[in-house]
Amino acid sequence: MPMKITRPTLLLDKQKALQNISRMAAKAKQNGVRLRPHFKTHQSAQVGEWFRAYGVEAITVSSVRMARYFADHGWTDIMIAFPANVLEMESINELASRINLHLVAVNQDTVTALAKGLRHPVQLSLKIDTGYRRTGILATNYAEVDAIVQLIREQEKLQFAGFVVHDGHTYKQTDADAIQTIFNTSVYQLRQLRNRYKAKHPNLQLSIGDTPSCSIIEALQGVDEIRPGNFVFYDLMQQRIGSCTFEDIAVCMACPVVAKHPDRGEIILYGGSVHFSKEVLLQEDASTSYGRVVTLTEDGWSEPLEGIQVVSLSQEHGVVKATPEQFSKYNIGDLMGVLPVHSCLTANLMQGYLTTEGEVLEHLTGLPQQLVS
Amino acid sequence: MPMKITRPTLLLDKQKALQNISRMAAKAKQNGVRLRPHFKTHQSAQVGEWFRAYGVEAITVSSVRMARYFADHGWTDIMIAFPANVLEMESINELASRINLHLVAVNQDTVTALAKGLRHPVQLSLKIDTGYRRTGILATNYAEVDAIVQLIREQEKLQFAGFVVHDGHTYKQTDADAIQTIFNTSVYQLRQLRNRYKAKHPNLQLSIGDTPSCSIIEALQGVDEIRPGNFVFYDLMQQRIGSCTFEDIAVCMACPVVAKHPDRGEIILYGGSVHFSKEVLLQEDASTSYGRVVTLTEDGWSEPLEGIQVVSLSQEHGVVKATPEQFSKYNIGDLMGVLPVHSCLTANLMQGYLTTEGEVLEHLTGLPQQLVS
Repeated sequence: MPMKITRPTLLLDKQKALQNISRMAAKAKQNGVRLRPHFKTHQSAQVGEWFRAYGVEAITVSSVRMARYFADHGWTDIMIAFPANVLEMESINELASRINLHLVAVNQDTVTALAKGLRHPVQLSLKIDTGYRRTGILATNYAEVDAIVQLIREQEKLQFAGFVVHDGHTYKQTDADAIQTIFNTSVYQLRQLRNRYKAKHPNLQLSIGDTPSCSIIEALQGVDEIRPGNFVFYDLMQQRIGSCTFEDIAVCMACPVVAKHPDRGEIILYGGSVHFSKEVLLQEDASTSYGRVVTLTEDGWSEPLEGIQVVSLSQEHGVVKATPEQFSKYNIGDLMGVLPVHSCLTANLMQGYLTTEGEVLEHLTGLPQQLVS
Repeated sequence: MPMKITRPTLLLDKQKALQNISRMAAKAKQNGVRLRPHFKTHQSAQVGEWFRAYGVEAITVSSVRMARYFADHGWTDIMIAFPANVLEMESINELASRINLHLVAVNQDTVTALAKGLRHPVQLSLKIDTGYRRTGILATNYAEVDAIVQLIREQEKLQFAGFVVHDGHTYKQTDADAIQTIFNTSVYQLRQLRNRYKAKHPNLQLSIGDTPSCSIIEALQGVDEIRPGNFVFYDLMQQRIGSCTFEDIAVCMACPVVAKHPDRGEIILYGGSVHFSKEVLLQEDASTSYGRVVTLTEDGWSEPLEGIQVVSLSQEHGVVKATPEQFSKYNIGDLMGVLPVHSCLTANLMQGYLTTEGEVLEHLTGLPQQLVS
């Protein structure tokens, strides 16, 4: 590693991230769909810049604050893919005054409140639930969609843009066919909806967003836009689903070894739930993992090692279980590399990156933990 | 609430926190033990100041960075209750040059590295494992303790201070007798150790740290120092253990309602795992909870409501399941109060507080999420 690391640090392999972006951009182009990447994964102005070389001009974020951050860094076409929070009308207006802002609604009350509060035009899409059952209007609830479309039409500041879906239930799958089925079901339902309104709205856009579908399915036909986010870094959860290989994972924690317990083959890391998050992965053998150990090298890291992994986390401690052979390789004061279970949450906690080329990159939430006093 | 809240915000009831501090300080005084509170829970210079009125002069933290933060805010007696990270020698030396710094070691390698790198004297305690099995030297491993005590004795910059224990296994209990047994077992083992070395070290200190023991046990006899942290705020996990009542919980999230799904009685909050953390609570009826809903009032909040709670979290979404009666009380744009499962992790993510009296308090990790652009 090019820089002296003394505390838990989130490493970022820029070349891997660029490859991930390149692959997704090529797939979008090949399928004739717009790539509107979700920036909530990296939340970094500098990582955001990397997308421009691949023709990305429109982005997705998950909060008004994140939209403002990227607007301040030159992005002019931003969708906040979260049910519009009408309490933030003032910030929404400020943003709508200077960028092409897309909002998402899931009910009439929100549409009414937006119509009342907006002073500048915004694009408004309806969030549709095609099976995830977190939020969204049920795709088959035509009465509700009819009513809300009619309501939008009557509002001067709202431009009805289309339908957005997030198929979060693909995160529970580990089988490509299951993910293909979810995608097909969503596309079918979205197209039914579009057909219903196309006479009055010929340009309605269909937008879909999960990393598993966008990674695994080659023919992303039937939609106009994809909004994956996690793919820029990937992580153990995505590898488990089948969205990526271990080699594609572009972020890795480096954690100091602070204690060893030979009687039970456990190594204690400085690196806990305030660094990794509490996200846990159920593995094929039904064991749970909080991170897979890799060997840190001059310019990156290896594939995950067998016989060693993070088995529990408390606030600052990570407990690593190792075979005797792996156990003997580590000494107090060494750095251990750990691939995170969920890179979005780890990046959100770590507040910044150190690239394997030695560059420090910022994160919306603050300065990198490892670089501030 | 005294301030317009538009985004997920961590509310802090100062009077409840003061009561929690007052109660613990009184118990420490009554038992003749030093209260060295763990500041990792609040990580706030201002909350730290509240402890001074109760005679607190010595504190505990979990990282070198946190030690530096509180040293910069006038604390001069600080224990870093985490296995010393020898990679941070430079920062350790800087701190040791200006405050009374206490470190913790669990092995000879760390002692050797400290002895080699230190330029200023520090207090060094040994971390003992009396049953938790996370880290520490096994209390019965006299050979190892003998060797490490001998090694410390030979080092000019290391002053052997005593033994510290963190009985994290009390967090798995919900029965006061079980917690009393854990405490008694720890005290017995610690006193055996002290007896072994008292001829050469007559002033060895015994220090114990978990919030359940310190909250539940009235007679904290047999140790010299207690280091609880969570008690300043408490949370649902501590209520479940029996450390506190719901009324003692001093922090509460306020989250905007962004969607409602009457077909399944679910309300969607703006408030997810990047606000609460992914910590989950197994409840008495074997259901899991990510937070209990309360009614927000002019100057605080109610006890938890029945028939409504947070049942899942994704990155920014919280899903609340409610009975029809509770469901009907909430509208889009309302704020919902939610007691967190684990206040330390929630505070760490929220990066600041809004007191029910309208004061904004900082957190080491940054500016309050709700107050920065």
